[in-house]
Amino acid sequence: MGVADDTKETSRRRGGRKARQEMRAAPIPREEAAVKPGMVGGKYQPLSRAEQERIHESALEILETVGISDTIPSGIEYLTSVGCRYENGRMYFPRKVIAETLEKANYRFTLHGRDPVHDIEPCGKKVYFGTAGAAVHIAEPETNTYRESFLHDLYDAARIVDNCEHIHYFQRSVVPRDIEDPRDMDFNTAYASLAGTNKHVGTSMVMPQHVTDVLEMCHMIAGSEEAWRAKPFVSMSCCFVVPPMKWAEDACACLETAILGGMPVLLLSAGQAGATSPAALAGAVVLQVAECLAGLTYVNAISPGAPAIFGPWPFVSDLRTGAMSGGSGEQALLTAACAQMGQFYGLPTGSAAGMCDAEMPDIQAGYEKGLTAALVGASGLNMVYESVGMHASLLGFCLESLLIDNDMIGAINRNVRGIEVNDATLSVDIIREVCLEGPGHFLGSDQTLSLMQTEYVYPELATRMSPKEWNEAGKPDIVKKATARKKEILSTYFPGHIPADVDKAIRDKFNVLLPEESVRPK
Amino acid sequence: MGVADDTKETSRRRGGRKARQEMRAAPIPREEAAVKPGMVGGKYQPLSRAEQERIHESALEILETVGISDTIPSGIEYLTSVGCRYENGRMYFPRKVIAETLEKANYRFTLHGRDPVHDIEPCGKKVYFGTAGAAVHIAEPETNTYRESFLHDLYDAARIVDNCEHIHYFQRSVVPRDIEDPRDMDFNTAYASLAGTNKHVGTSMVMPQHVTDVLEMCHMIAGSEEAWRAKPFVSMSCCFVVPPMKWAEDACACLETAILGGMPVLLLSAGQAGATSPAALAGAVVLQVAECLAGLTYVNAISPGAPAIFGPWPFVSDLRTGAMSGGSGEQALLTAACAQMGQFYGLPTGSAAGMCDAEMPDIQAGYEKGLTAALVGASGLNMVYESVGMHASLLGFCLESLLIDNDMIGAINRNVRGIEVNDATLSVDIIREVCLEGPGHFLGSDQTLSLMQTEYVYPELATRMSPKEWNEAGKPDIVKKATARKKEILSTYFPGHIPADVDKAIRDKFNVLLPEESVRPK
Repeated sequence: MGVADDTKETSRRRGGRKARQEMRAAPIPREEAAVKPGMVGGKYQPLSRAEQERIHESALEILETVGISDTIPSGIEYLTSVGCRYENGRMYFPRKVIAETLEKANYRFTLHGRDPVHDIEPCGKKVYFGTAGAAVHIAEPETNTYRESFLHDLYDAARIVDNCEHIHYFQRSVVPRDIEDPRDMDFNTAYASLAGTNKHVGTSMVMPQHVTDVLEMCHMIAGSEEAWRAKPFVSMSCCFVVPPMKWAEDACACLETAILGGMPVLLLSAGQAGATSPAALAGAVVLQVAECLAGLTYVNAISPGAPAIFGPWPFVSDLRTGAMSGGSGEQALLTAACAQMGQFYGLPTGSAAGMCDAEMPDIQAGYEKGLTAALVGASGLNMVYESVGMHASLLGFCLESLLIDNDMIGAINRNVRGIEVNDATLSVDIIREVCLEGPGHFLGSDQTLSLMQTEYVYPELATRMSPKEWNEAGKPDIVKKATARKKEILSTYFPGHIPADVDKAIRDKFNVLLPEESVRPK
Repeated sequence: MGVADDTKETSRRRGGRKARQEMRAAPIPREEAAVKPGMVGGKYQPLSRAEQERIHESALEILETVGISDTIPSGIEYLTSVGCRYENGRMYFPRKVIAETLEKANYRFTLHGRDPVHDIEPCGKKVYFGTAGAAVHIAEPETNTYRESFLHDLYDAARIVDNCEHIHYFQRSVVPRDIEDPRDMDFNTAYASLAGTNKHVGTSMVMPQHVTDVLEMCHMIAGSEEAWRAKPFVSMSCCFVVPPMKWAEDACACLETAILGGMPVLLLSAGQAGATSPAALAGAVVLQVAECLAGLTYVNAISPGAPAIFGPWPFVSDLRTGAMSGGSGEQALLTAACAQMGQFYGLPTGSAAGMCDAEMPDIQAGYEKGLTAALVGASGLNMVYESVGMHASLLGFCLESLLIDNDMIGAINRNVRGIEVNDATLSVDIIREVCLEGPGHFLGSDQTLSLMQTEYVYPELATRMSPKEWNEAGKPDIVKKATARKKEILSTYFPGHIPADVDKAIRDKFNVLLPEESVRPK
């Protein structure tokens, strides 16, 4: 595979290899980067249009004839007011109601970052990659151990994401198990996220009062409620349903509060195929789509046009044990099919890919993450949640993996961008010149030099060495490199995303558990 | 994510979890397996039809106006006899000649295994995964070292592939560097492959006499030349061209001998974008497609309808160093685009995916392999070469990775199979029953039990454990498990694929360097 290094001709023209290395070493302006947030995907489409229609029809049938149990009183009021039928303890959704919901729904909204460079527009087939999850453990590759996750881990994860070019938003990934009180937990989860990154933050709350707390903090950070409502920078991940077809009562109450407070919501229906959803992949998609359409009806009954992300998240079960499994080919199919159903409706859609079942950042973790995130990215899913850092079927989170997965997502995002075919890229004239007049290779051609940044993505931690170079470099280990980079970021990067005066006001009002010196060291 | 274990209802019905585990422990009949060789892909299509046409047109233009240099005398005779124009040392291909080639070409042939269960039919969008390569090193994860590759490594690789459900054919993956004489090297490469596996074998020869040697061995193994020609079980990987647009003279001479001897050929054009092919991805595809069309013209000039695999293999260069890089998002795009061009012509097509730049089976290796093999599998490429075992940008090969990658390809192949959408899989009745009458979950439903083998693929080496289970199991390490499995196979598996009498006859006639006791231990 060896290719001769530059010939004299190329060195004369542009300085050859050295010039290329120097050019690459300089920071790349964002507008020239090979990949940006929101590349347009959709070239992987496992379902035909007819199959999408059959899934849609089946979802409508279930909504109309099976209905959803456990509706809270306010939900009964909202849903019957738009035409749903409440009978024998179940809420039924006539087709007309779903059609009207789809007329009222918000198809185009922004998930704001506090820095507008991080704004996300989850529409069409634009793809954004981010974190998510509720891991209760941290995987520590340095010691090959698992431990409970704490509040500072969440803050650390947010600070690392703030440093990762290819991770476009930060959703709460670990549960701070050092906080017992649920209200403190929800508040501090949001606080730690907002302290660590100014990318868009997703979080989760278990009681309406907790939503109110977080909204109040958001008003303080934004400067006013109006400023918050104009550019909401926090969204709520809401498991509004317990599949199959049962509302999650507290989550529904939170949903109402968030919608009224102007907070975008992720309508997350997380079934497990073969356990809480049908084992047949198509059936799992049907059930989760039906539930999300119900959730969307709820949202639009509360406030027509409120921003909501359509979130069918069917997971795979390992049917030998019933355990959730996230890194399989079946998982990639399920999530890509859900992406297509979101596109079928034209709704901003989010689901999960890039998970793995491996405990540690090993080759199994790599291929499970790689195959699922690549296929789902190619499907054009707007919000690819859980795409970085997750391990052990979502039970574990690893900060080293965040950094390594950032490289992986860079490569996957380059794939999402696709191949541009035009007169220039078809390169007929360049091929002719190189073969008939030129040096017989393309190393020194102007095209090569001009495309090296705009056509290609380069990894930060991953190596591209021959065995000889690898030996001479002391056999670099990517996980150890990631640990070193993690320590560097965590010991030096204190972004102060919450200004000191606002921070003080928040601390005066709420029980902030992240010590001030963690956020703003002396 | 926890899901309650079986309730009493489900246990009563079918014995629940225990029944499922027992069912899974039994061997799965091939016709019931969730994945088989030759699943139909093609749901990932990065190029539009119009873009494919532009690439085709550009390739024709280059063939017509740039031409190929260094044609050997017999090639001049073959090619001018079908209408090519030879001028000023270059061979030009008028459009009419390409059109006629595409009329004569063989669109449907079988790559035979010596056991017909391993027959491969590379047509339509059927996908097969296998090895390939010419690695000169073996990666030894046990000691974290690289060493030269030897003949026994090739035999070992073949024996391991013979044990891997998801690896569908064996192409020579390492160069036996313990053999100096090229004729001995080529012969023994083929011999070791055929001794180790009865899946279809691909190999490579550098001189026509070597092809003749291997053909003679094939006649002996088949029983006669007629029997060999009826079901050829060895194909020749032929790098017939040195991009850009220069014939590889010795390879062309081998090509002629192989075609005349009834051996299927892989027409492999391996450029490196930015080095021996244009840096623009579309241009690299154009060049490799043009070269493969030229190769196909050559083949059909020698023998119309001879079996040939269309093999545009553009590789990515890391333009900072010029080094080949195989595990990137750009690589997945290049190979998938080539798959589509093969589909554009309807030709049996093979190219490379599943490579990685990482030296060892680590997380980088995993994600590089996973993302490229998954996307290319989804593109419907017929023959996915280099899909298992490769490291260090093709310079290294790892037997442990073969076994681990087998699990990965199983998952990817499950993805290739796709989602079946029909009345049964849409599961409307099952959802209704479970919600309105049943236990409120699907764990014990008849559908779940009946689909657990046919809908889902289970890995052999990869784990799906909670952190607690992982701890209790002694923190299993997938690479160590693979090493143990490798040792088990290599110390116990001596398939004797070449019967003793034939083996003796071959050893009498040729310089077989693999000791008899390696093949048939006492």
